[in-house]
Amino acid sequence: MTALPEALLAAVARDFPADFLSVDPSDLATFGRDWTKVHEPRPTAVALPRTTDEVSRLLRLCTAFQVPVVPSGGRTGLAAGAVAAQGEVVVSLSRMRRMNPVDVLGGTVRVQAGAVTEEVHRHVAEHGLTWPVDFASKGSSQVGGNIATNAGGVKVIRYGLTRQWVLGLEVVLASGEVLELGGALEKNNTGIDLRQLFIGSEGTLGIITEATLKLTRLPGKLDVLLFAVPNLAGVLSLFREARTGPFVITAYEFFTEKCMARVRRHRSVREPLSSPSEYYVLLEVERAEPEALEGWITSLFERGVVTDGTLAQHAGEAAAIWALREGISESLSATGMPHKNDIALPIQELEGFCAELESVFEARYPGWEIALFGHIGDGNLHVNVMKPDAMEKAAFLARTHEADHTMFDLVRKYRGSISAEHGIGLLKKDYLAYSRSGTEIEIMRAIKRALDPLGIMNPGKVF
Amino acid sequence: MTALPEALLAAVARDFPADFLSVDPSDLATFGRDWTKVHEPRPTAVALPRTTDEVSRLLRLCTAFQVPVVPSGGRTGLAAGAVAAQGEVVVSLSRMRRMNPVDVLGGTVRVQAGAVTEEVHRHVAEHGLTWPVDFASKGSSQVGGNIATNAGGVKVIRYGLTRQWVLGLEVVLASGEVLELGGALEKNNTGIDLRQLFIGSEGTLGIITEATLKLTRLPGKLDVLLFAVPNLAGVLSLFREARTGPFVITAYEFFTEKCMARVRRHRSVREPLSSPSEYYVLLEVERAEPEALEGWITSLFERGVVTDGTLAQHAGEAAAIWALREGISESLSATGMPHKNDIALPIQELEGFCAELESVFEARYPGWEIALFGHIGDGNLHVNVMKPDAMEKAAFLARTHEADHTMFDLVRKYRGSISAEHGIGLLKKDYLAYSRSGTEIEIMRAIKRALDPLGIMNPGKVF
Repeated sequence: MTALPEALLAAVARDFPADFLSVDPSDLATFGRDWTKVHEPRPTAVALPRTTDEVSRLLRLCTAFQVPVVPSGGRTGLAAGAVAAQGEVVVSLSRMRRMNPVDVLGGTVRVQAGAVTEEVHRHVAEHGLTWPVDFASKGSSQVGGNIATNAGGVKVIRYGLTRQWVLGLEVVLASGEVLELGGALEKNNTGIDLRQLFIGSEGTLGIITEATLKLTRLPGKLDVLLFAVPNLAGVLSLFREARTGPFVITAYEFFTEKCMARVRRHRSVREPLSSPSEYYVLLEVERAEPEALEGWITSLFERGVVTDGTLAQHAGEAAAIWALREGISESLSATGMPHKNDIALPIQELEGFCAELESVFEARYPGWEIALFGHIGDGNLHVNVMKPDAMEKAAFLARTHEADHTMFDLVRKYRGSISAEHGIGLLKKDYLAYSRSGTEIEIMRAIKRALDPLGIMNPGKVF
Repeated sequence: MTALPEALLAAVARDFPADFLSVDPSDLATFGRDWTKVHEPRPTAVALPRTTDEVSRLLRLCTAFQVPVVPSGGRTGLAAGAVAAQGEVVVSLSRMRRMNPVDVLGGTVRVQAGAVTEEVHRHVAEHGLTWPVDFASKGSSQVGGNIATNAGGVKVIRYGLTRQWVLGLEVVLASGEVLELGGALEKNNTGIDLRQLFIGSEGTLGIITEATLKLTRLPGKLDVLLFAVPNLAGVLSLFREARTGPFVITAYEFFTEKCMARVRRHRSVREPLSSPSEYYVLLEVERAEPEALEGWITSLFERGVVTDGTLAQHAGEAAAIWALREGISESLSATGMPHKNDIALPIQELEGFCAELESVFEARYPGWEIALFGHIGDGNLHVNVMKPDAMEKAAFLARTHEADHTMFDLVRKYRGSISAEHGIGLLKKDYLAYSRSGTEIEIMRAIKRALDPLGIMNPGKVF
């Protein structure tokens, strides 16, 4: 562990609250990592500011002493973007969780970056509003982290990515300078929109300290359906039908029987359908007229678009269907050793891609089970490759790197993305060139140099 | 008019089609200007490429000879962003209007940048889809121009700005290098999203040659309503009611009796309401149940939220109501001399801002009529200051510059934007600092240098 310069420590002791900086080993271990468990956390200290001014003054010091910094939110990331493994100072936003009163007329709310996603949901729900950024980790993820990673989730098909729900940002640059970008404005066409640079920048350009969020009306009654289809072509045919169905789609998720079998082994589940099927689709819809929805479902059966299906009759049944989908990740880890990827393909390429992936893996990695699920309405696949039970862990890990290159070759061939929603961080950095050209990476570096000339912001991440 | 280097002309004659470059005076006059009539068009030549490769080879030549370039779409802009007044070469995308077949499953379509907005609408409508970028000039505006200006319009309250409807961009840099940014992907979190730089860049960073557009389902039946309210507070109270009404808002526009009086003078209009009112609201909604809508309207009258109102009973009545709103701009020009601004305010600041604007203008510019209208659901005001009939045109123009500073001081005070949707171009360049800080402008310049080191792309525009 590197030591911080004496003069920096003296300045912190003089100009900041006594509890501002922690070097407690348990804090270092906690704040040095995210949900990935690949890198050993090794920060030098954890700073816990309460105000933007404290963030600004700290970054000025870090610039003066060239101390690297890792911005840190709820640390629920899956790409090791918030990992501090190189003696950095972690700047945790967790004390900055103030939420201003909701601007009901404008449909906006300004919050500090450390506000927890689910607390924002609660804060605005009493006005019939929501910030529609929604995923499993919302109970601990923070607004600043959501924005810095342009978070996705299960409602993207209805609401888009986090990028669409950010009106204004307050950002502290490495120099300590505070930028106010945008504000409570829907429209502001005054030159290059610098907000967009920070959305999805994974902490490499500055620290987001406050945000003005765009809100929308809470959805009306939601209907949840589970369907069985024989193959991926069936998943896509049903998607085509749903696109023109008598409702608004709020989620279109799929998973395979291989995933379902793992959920069954790990949890006691009530099976909503009478018999297993190779592929399942979870469809959630809003504003459906009961008769129109029933008619639509009947027609699917009559035309053989689905082989089985059920419409949740009450909230408990809806939750049980969602539990199947949301239990997959945990069940895969509980019943084996998954190697995870999060990729996106143009929807029309999904079938070709998956068929080729299966056959290439069968040939090169016999016995490796591929558990597929994801937000297929967005072309987003979570590809979990399971270690064969008989294979040594070390032998498996030694080959996953090569297997990733194999998969990403196919992703590139089918014009997809190697990271749909998780970002690049440390985990996918070696593979960035599969999705971005040399010139693009050079332009990113130039932007980085313009905003962070000393390279102290989250060094080594992304590019 | 500057002459082009002989060697460049020789290269064009050798390597491009015979009709690639025009120096015909009428072409120079046509392609040198947009809908603003402030600057005298003075391009050196107009290039009319048919392919991305031609754009790329042309820009390589322009870089080699340091010839400045103005990218040019439908030239319907209102900020002089596409004006060529300094001997530039205009690169018109008007021959590049190919539209690929619609990807119905993914809900996308790839088109060349010169495709006309309304033609895209027609191309995708047969599949029940739309590209929801919609405004009065859609019959001549082009997709590339819409994206380069992040165009707004009357449906932003429902669908957001153009930025939300662009999945992939093909862009040619000044160097001639072609970038493929994104593609037919909803999700792609792989480092800084460079697409976002080009959206709204007003041609200063490169030339957009192709785009993969995100489509959405055509809306269902739309209801159009016109209401009378006594004042701006009434416009905002009604907006609050509409936000929770039993429908989806697709447009919320307002205009004042001053605007209506000009429309009345210029056109023969059938007045939909029985008597004039100081303020009018046009509300368009989707998915309204007839009884629920009637009940909502009745309640507005009972509670005195509106003083008058009408619901269009058929398409003709709906069109007549829209014609009032859409006839304002033309009627202002036909009945007097408007000085135009396009600003945005946080919605909750609109009342304070408008009251202060009125009183400041009354004191400093007595007799200047302010005609207010706009997309108030987005906080977007079109402020038209009318020349007093008795005032000399030159005397009026001499004072509008000062009046703009007066207004923009207030815009800044109320945390607004000096250009909501029209952009900066040449017209608003002198005022950019009202909306963007010195550091922000420096960062924009650094990005510009990274992408266009010689500064040949639309020089002098924006910053």
